Amino acid sequence: MTDSPIVVRVRLDLSYDGTDFAGWADQPELRTVQGALEAALARVVRAESLPRLVVAGRTDAGVHARGQVAHVDIPLSAWRRLPSRSRPGEAESLQARLNGVLPSDIVVRAASEAPPGFDARFSASERRYAYRISDAGRRPDPLIRRHALAYPRALNVDALNEASRSLTGLRDFCAFCRPREGATTIRDLRELSWRREESGADAGLVVATVRADAFCHSMVRSLVGAVLAVGDGRRDAAWLSRVASSPKRSPAIAVAPGCGLTLEEVVYPTDAEVALRAAETRSRRTLN
Amino acid sequence: MTDSPIVVRVRLDLSYDGTDFAGWADQPELRTVQGALEAALARVVRAESLPRLVVAGRTDAGVHARGQVAHVDIPLSAWRRLPSRSRPGEAESLQARLNGVLPSDIVVRAASEAPPGFDARFSASERRYAYRISDAGRRPDPLIRRHALAYPRALNVDALNEASRSLTGLRDFCAFCRPREGATTIRDLRELSWRREESGADAGLVVATVRADAFCHSMVRSLVGAVLAVGDGRRDAAWLSRVASSPKRSPAIAVAPGCGLTLEEVVYPTDAEVALRAAETRSRRTLN
Repeated sequence: MTDSPIVVRVRLDLSYDGTDFAGWADQPELRTVQGALEAALARVVRAESLPRLVVAGRTDAGVHARGQVAHVDIPLSAWRRLPSRSRPGEAESLQARLNGVLPSDIVVRAASEAPPGFDARFSASERRYAYRISDAGRRPDPLIRRHALAYPRALNVDALNEASRSLTGLRDFCAFCRPREGATTIRDLRELSWRREESGADAGLVVATVRADAFCHSMVRSLVGAVLAVGDGRRDAAWLSRVASSPKRSPAIAVAPGCGLTLEEVVYPTDAEVALRAAETRSRRTLN
Repeated sequence: MTDSPIVVRVRLDLSYDGTDFAGWADQPELRTVQGALEAALARVVRAESLPRLVVAGRTDAGVHARGQVAHVDIPLSAWRRLPSRSRPGEAESLQARLNGVLPSDIVVRAASEAPPGFDARFSASERRYAYRISDAGRRPDPLIRRHALAYPRALNVDALNEASRSLTGLRDFCAFCRPREGATTIRDLRELSWRREESGADAGLVVATVRADAFCHSMVRSLVGAVLAVGDGRRDAAWLSRVASSPKRSPAIAVAPGCGLTLEEVVYPTDAEVALRAAETRSRRTLN
């Protein structure tokens, strides 16, 4: 689990338009972000074995990312062959070479040698997502139509916020998660807030900000789906309270579509703390 | 030229992703914004003659719009047939019907009865464009890649702004315009400023804001192209001053690609003033 002396652990900061991907995780026969990135790594890094990526947020089909983070272990010998005359740094050369072969819907925003003990998944202290909605049947602005949901009903932002407040905090989110054996569904939901944007690229959209230490599978989209049912007037606070306290995944909750969701940021502690954080997280979420 | 009593002049506020269009203006055999909108109007408005659109900014191939404005005259009889039980207002019904048949890269953001004397082109008092650039060879964020230019060289924002200041004001922009016989090239360039965005959807991009009473053909992209040559260090202020004072279109100026350009806003005076403004503009720019 720890860094072997013969590999260099590299942190990759990534953005992608998830529209044409079947999600992050590699799946046979399907176009996935992991598959496209590992294919690019195999072309760029001359190593005997294909490097495998570990990611902070395993986004589902259609979900986008502006601030995704992954790590990969590259054999030291291959790492040392990366620099070129125009790009003397290994990480800088890796980034440029990857961007030279990746399709236009994925970009490596940054590449860097990871600090000791860094793990893209287990060292992360927080994930922040945004969910963008064009409500009341308005079609989204064509320039952002690939990462906003067209929602038929009008949304009440105050109602969305009131409903959301009842869900935040450290608690068991089993009602909102697809279960995985042996994995805890306790999470610290630090923010679930909504605003109607007045200006900028998102003007007119209703945008949710969702922050937690980590999310279970489908948790963000289930939270959004549940709150939307209150925000558009179909359900009330009593219903939300009832489904939120369900001891297992509630079939009453509609999971919101992936297209509106973007992983905006992954937060890590300081370099000195990433190893400790990774060890703590692993012990808490053993099989997750 | 004035409103006939048997038509209703309608203002349409439009957004489009220009990537897959050969510009605004209708051209045989090509996919254009005007062509797609007029085809949609012909399907939605049951009139004997196809309504023709007049637009505030005739965007070129690949250029986008978030705040485009056009007008169209709809026969009163056809206008009165628009409402339905679910949409009792004519304008609201027109907007919904158009959005129901338009392709996903055009959207009608609003439709309204225009005030008396309104002309989408001649009543406008100002156009504002943005030009978005991912510089230093960095690939743009995939989520906005369709409306930002990937520029190979690093840009100095201070140098861009200094160069731009020398170009603003009321002057003859013939050096930056494709000439049209009988049309003046005198314009009031109110702003040409640059900033590197720190946050939001444009984080990391260098973005120009360009405002004028109106623009000649290719003027925004020529201004941007000329200033970029200074901002990336290839040219100096003396060169810019020389080409800017050229008595005709300067071949030394590279016109910046359309993909980075977005028409963000068209400004109109108050309803009471639009007719006067249209008359004034027509008299100044007779054939333009």
